Amino acid sequence: MLNSNYKEITLKNKKTSVSVKPNKDKQQKEKTEVVKQVKENKKSLKVRFIGGVGEIGKNMTALEFGKDIIVIDAGLTFPGDNMPGVDLVIPDVTYLAQNKSRIRGIVITHGHEDHIGGLPYILKDISAPVFGTKLTLTLIENKLKEHRLNDVSLNCVKAGSVIKLGCFSVEFINVNHSIAGAVGLAITTPVGVVFHSGDFKIDFTPVNGEMMDLNRIAEIGKKGVLLMMADSTNIEIDGMTMSESVVKDTLDHVFADNIKRRLIIATFASNVHRLQQILDLAVKYKRKVAFSGRSMINIAEAAAKIGELNIPDGLIIDVEKTKSFKDEQILIVSTGTQGEPMSALTRMASGEFNKVVIGKNDTVVISASVIPGNEKMIYGVINNLYRLGAEVIYESLEPIHVSGHACKGELKMLHTLISPKFFIPVHGEYRHLKKHARLAESLGMRESNILIADIGDTVELTSNAMKFGEKFHAGSRFVDGVGIDGADSFVLRDRIHLSEDGLVVVVVGVEELSARLTSLEIIGKGLVFSETMINEAKSNVANALNKVDLRTVRDESELNALIRRSIKNYIFKATKKNPMILPVVMVV
Amino acid sequence: MLNSNYKEITLKNKKTSVSVKPNKDKQQKEKTEVVKQVKENKKSLKVRFIGGVGEIGKNMTALEFGKDIIVIDAGLTFPGDNMPGVDLVIPDVTYLAQNKSRIRGIVITHGHEDHIGGLPYILKDISAPVFGTKLTLTLIENKLKEHRLNDVSLNCVKAGSVIKLGCFSVEFINVNHSIAGAVGLAITTPVGVVFHSGDFKIDFTPVNGEMMDLNRIAEIGKKGVLLMMADSTNIEIDGMTMSESVVKDTLDHVFADNIKRRLIIATFASNVHRLQQILDLAVKYKRKVAFSGRSMINIAEAAAKIGELNIPDGLIIDVEKTKSFKDEQILIVSTGTQGEPMSALTRMASGEFNKVVIGKNDTVVISASVIPGNEKMIYGVINNLYRLGAEVIYESLEPIHVSGHACKGELKMLHTLISPKFFIPVHGEYRHLKKHARLAESLGMRESNILIADIGDTVELTSNAMKFGEKFHAGSRFVDGVGIDGADSFVLRDRIHLSEDGLVVVVVGVEELSARLTSLEIIGKGLVFSETMINEAKSNVANALNKVDLRTVRDESELNALIRRSIKNYIFKATKKNPMILPVVMVV
Repeated sequence: MLNSNYKEITLKNKKTSVSVKPNKDKQQKEKTEVVKQVKENKKSLKVRFIGGVGEIGKNMTALEFGKDIIVIDAGLTFPGDNMPGVDLVIPDVTYLAQNKSRIRGIVITHGHEDHIGGLPYILKDISAPVFGTKLTLTLIENKLKEHRLNDVSLNCVKAGSVIKLGCFSVEFINVNHSIAGAVGLAITTPVGVVFHSGDFKIDFTPVNGEMMDLNRIAEIGKKGVLLMMADSTNIEIDGMTMSESVVKDTLDHVFADNIKRRLIIATFASNVHRLQQILDLAVKYKRKVAFSGRSMINIAEAAAKIGELNIPDGLIIDVEKTKSFKDEQILIVSTGTQGEPMSALTRMASGEFNKVVIGKNDTVVISASVIPGNEKMIYGVINNLYRLGAEVIYESLEPIHVSGHACKGELKMLHTLISPKFFIPVHGEYRHLKKHARLAESLGMRESNILIADIGDTVELTSNAMKFGEKFHAGSRFVDGVGIDGADSFVLRDRIHLSEDGLVVVVVGVEELSARLTSLEIIGKGLVFSETMINEAKSNVANALNKVDLRTVRDESELNALIRRSIKNYIFKATKKNPMILPVVMVV
Repeated sequence: MLNSNYKEITLKNKKTSVSVKPNKDKQQKEKTEVVKQVKENKKSLKVRFIGGVGEIGKNMTALEFGKDIIVIDAGLTFPGDNMPGVDLVIPDVTYLAQNKSRIRGIVITHGHEDHIGGLPYILKDISAPVFGTKLTLTLIENKLKEHRLNDVSLNCVKAGSVIKLGCFSVEFINVNHSIAGAVGLAITTPVGVVFHSGDFKIDFTPVNGEMMDLNRIAEIGKKGVLLMMADSTNIEIDGMTMSESVVKDTLDHVFADNIKRRLIIATFASNVHRLQQILDLAVKYKRKVAFSGRSMINIAEAAAKIGELNIPDGLIIDVEKTKSFKDEQILIVSTGTQGEPMSALTRMASGEFNKVVIGKNDTVVISASVIPGNEKMIYGVINNLYRLGAEVIYESLEPIHVSGHACKGELKMLHTLISPKFFIPVHGEYRHLKKHARLAESLGMRESNILIADIGDTVELTSNAMKFGEKFHAGSRFVDGVGIDGADSFVLRDRIHLSEDGLVVVVVGVEELSARLTSLEIIGKGLVFSETMINEAKSNVANALNKVDLRTVRDESELNALIRRSIKNYIFKATKKNPMILPVVMVV
C-alpha cells in the first residue's frame, strides 16, 4: 500500500492533485481568485481543534473552507491515572465522520505517536489519503498493517514539495525534531497562508545535515502569513535547545570511559538520528550492536530499509549471540527509557530478561528525558540496575539527551521570521499556550490577534479578522480492550470506585409465591471484610427485608436500594470504606 | 500530655534519665568502661533499619546494645500507584513490638510526616517516651490528640542538650532544614559515637539566625565518630543548597511587582521559617493575611503559640472576611502546593472554594517544589488557575523555593568534619545511597567501611568492625480505612485487578435435591458487557453446568472453577479483558 518509489508523489485519491514545486505565478493568480471568492461568498476559513490544545498529546487539527476539509495529524495520548484499564486515548472524530466526504487528505507532520497513533482507529471512521515524509509513512504503514488496514492511500512527500488538496495547497518545510522527516506546513488557503510549525527545534548542526529550512520560512513570512500555529512544549525554557550533535560528544566520552565494560544504551526507537550517532560510535569503538526490544528492532529495520539509518554490514548481531563476545565488544541498544513495565530495559533491571543478564561490568546509559508521570517507574528501573551492580548514567548534568522542541529563543526566531497577522499557540497544556501567547505579545503582537483554543473550538478567519466560531462535538475516546469506546465514564467511575473501596456482593434468594427471603449470601472483594462483619451485614439485610412485605416492593431497583441502605452505614462503620454494593435478587 | 515548660527537660519514664550538658570526664570514663564491657561480653551495637533506606519516606532506625533499644524517628510514606485505596504506609514494627520492654525512648529529629507520621500507629504497638524539640513535639501532640492517644510521654529537648537512654546518651545538635527545630544526633554508645545527620542542609544565613552547629559537629568529629548515617536526598545535585533567606528577596520582588493585585501564596504549612518570611513581607507591604486550609491554620496557630512564629496583632483575618478588603490589601496563605485534591488551592483553582474566588486580579505563587509523582496534579491546578485569568508564579527560574536537603558540597563538608570510621548512607532511594557511598569513597573512605542497608537489615558494629548481621522481620504496613493492615497484598491485587479489568458476577441457583440448575444471573461492572454478551455468557455457563451431574461435584470451589472455566475464554474474546469472575452458588 505504501508507494514504493518515494521520489515520486503519486496520489490514489482522485480528489487530490499534486504539484511538486510551487509555481509563484499560479499561486498569485489563485490567491487573487480566492480573495474575490471570499468577498463574494463571505466564506471564512475554519480551524477546528480536535486535539492537542490544552494538552500535550493526540494532536489533530482540521482546516475547513467551503466544501473542503484537510486534517493535520492524528495522534493518540496515553491514559492518565484516572483511567484505569484504558489502553489508549484518541481524539473523538465525530465531526469528521459526519463530514467524511469533504475530507481531501490527512497531512502528517512527523511519526511520533502523538501525531500518528490515532490513525489506525480514525481510519475506521473516515477515509482519506494520508500524506507524510518517508520515515513518517513507514511508521504509519507498520501501524496500519498491525490493524490489517491495507487499503489506505499512503502518499510520500518530500520537504520542499507542495500538494493540492481541494482549495488548499500544502507545502512541506523541513524542520528539526527528535525524529527524522519532521516537517512544518505552509498551507495556502483562500483567505491567506496558514503556517503550522509542527513539532520543531532549530538545530544548526543537525545529524543528517538537513537544517530547518529557515530561508524558506523567512520567504513565506515575507510574503505574508495570515495565521501561525506553533509548538509550545518548551515555552517555559529560556535560550535555545541544544543540538542533537552535542549528544555525540557526550556519548563518545561514555564509550571512551567504559572501554572495558559492556555498554547498554536505552533510547527512543524512533529517534533515528540518535540511533545513527550511537551506531557510528559503536563502529568507532569496534563494538558489535544488538538491538533489544520489539519496537527497537522493527523501527531500526524499517529506517535502514528506507535509507534513513545507515547500518554497516556485519555490525548488528542477534542479542542472543552477545554472550559469545567479550563485554568490551558489545553494545546493546534497548527500549525502555520510561521504565515501561514490559520493555527490555525494565526486564533486564528486574532480572527477568534471560538474553541480557546485568552485572557489575555493565554501564547502562538512559539517553532520554523522563516524561512527566513516569518518574517513579524509571527511577525504579535505575535503582534495580544499581542493585545488580551496574553503573547507570542518566539525566545527569551531562547532555546524554537533548529535547526535540524549541525553547524561547527559537520560538522568538520563528515568530520574527513568520510575523503572522494572527497567532494560535498549539501543542501545550493551557499554561504553555498562555505563556506562548505572552511571548508573541512581547514581540509586538496585539493581544486581540491571539487566541487560545480548546478542544472543540472552531476559529474562523477571513483575510483580516479572527474570531471564535461555533463549538463542535469533540473530546476523548478510550481504546479499552476490544475496541474504541470500550470504556465510558460510568465504566471508569466503577473501576476507580472498585479499586479504592472494593466490592460487596449481596445475593438474596426470594421465594416467588410467598415472597419470603429464602437465602442470603454476602461476599466482599478488594476490602477487608471478616467473617464476623459478613455475619453482621447478613443479619442487617435479613432484618431489613423481613420488616417489609416483599410483595409490596414495586420492582427490583427498589429492592436493591433497600438492600444497599440496610448495610451501607454498617459497612462504613466497620471498614471506613464505601465499597460498591452489588445486590443480586434471585426469585426462586 | 506535652510538658508545658519547654525549657526544662523532664522525663516521665523511669527507665530514662537526663543530663543537660555533656560531662567530658564522665563521658570518657563511661567510654573506657564500655570498651571493657564490649571486650568482655563480645557485645556489638546493632543498627536495625526499619524504614527510610532504599526509599524516601517512613524513616525509622533502631540502635540496640545489650538490653537497650532506642528508636530514631517513626515516619510514614504516602501510597504509590500500585496501592489503590490505601491511605498511608507505615513501617512494620513487629521486631520492636516483640522487644517493647527494651525500648528506652523514641528520638525524633524533626516534625515532617516522613519522620513523625507513623507515631500514632506505632504507639499502639509499643510504648516508650518520645523526645524532640519544641515544634516537633507540638506537631506530634496534635497528631496524637487526633488519635486520642493521651498517655504518651512527650519530652521536650533543646539543641545542645543530652539525654541518657539506657546505655546510650543522645546529644541533639541544631541543623538547618525546611522546618524549624530540626536536629542531628550524636549518640554515644558502648562501642563509640554514632552520628545521625537527620534531614539537614547548611544554611549560613538561616531565617531564625540559628545556623547548623558546625562547631559542635567539628568537635564531635575530632573526638572520633564510629559510624555516620547521613541524608542522601540531594546527593545528585552539585554545589550547595540555597539559603532560605534567598526566598525572601524573590518574594519581596513578587510583592513589589503585584502591588495592586491580590496575592495568594501556597506553601508547606510546616515550613515555619518560610511562613515567617511571608508574614514579614505582608507587614512590610501592609497586607492582611488570611490562612486557608485546615493544616495551615492548625500549624500556624500551634507554631505561634510556642513562639516559633511571630504573628503581629491584627495581621491575621478570617478568610471569609477578605472580601471586605481591596485586593491589594490581602494576602492569602494556602495549602495545596502538591495539587492535593481536597486542598484549598486545588478547590480555588476548580472554582469550588466559595471563600476565595479566583480572577484576573490574582497572582498565585506556589512556593514549593513538586514532589515526584505529583506533577500531573499540580500542573492541572496551575492550568486551571490560568484559565480563571490568574497569574501563576511557580518553579520558575526565580528561587521562590529552596530545598531543605544538603547538596554534594554540604555533604562533603559534613563527611570531612565528622570523618567517621564507618558510614551508612540513609534517606534515599538505592541510587541515592549508592552515590552517597561513592562520595564518601571520593573523600578517602575505604569501600569496605561503607555499607548500603536495606529495610530489615541489621548492621553490627564493634569499635573496629562493621558487618551485616541477621535479617529481621520488617517492611510496610498499610493503613487502609479503619485500621492498620486494612489491606494486605491479596486485597490490593484484587483492587488492581478490578480497576483494570472489572468484574463479572455469576449467580447460580441449584435445587438441593435434584441438583438442577434453577436460575442464573450474570452482572458485569467496570467493563463493557452488552446484553448480547451477557446472554452468550449465560448460555455458556448453562451448557457447562448441564453437562455435568452436579451431585458429583465435590465442593463449592470445584463448582466455582467450573463456572469460571465456562466463560473465561468467551469473555476475553468478546472484551479483550480478563475481568474478575465471581461465582456465587445458592442451593435452594
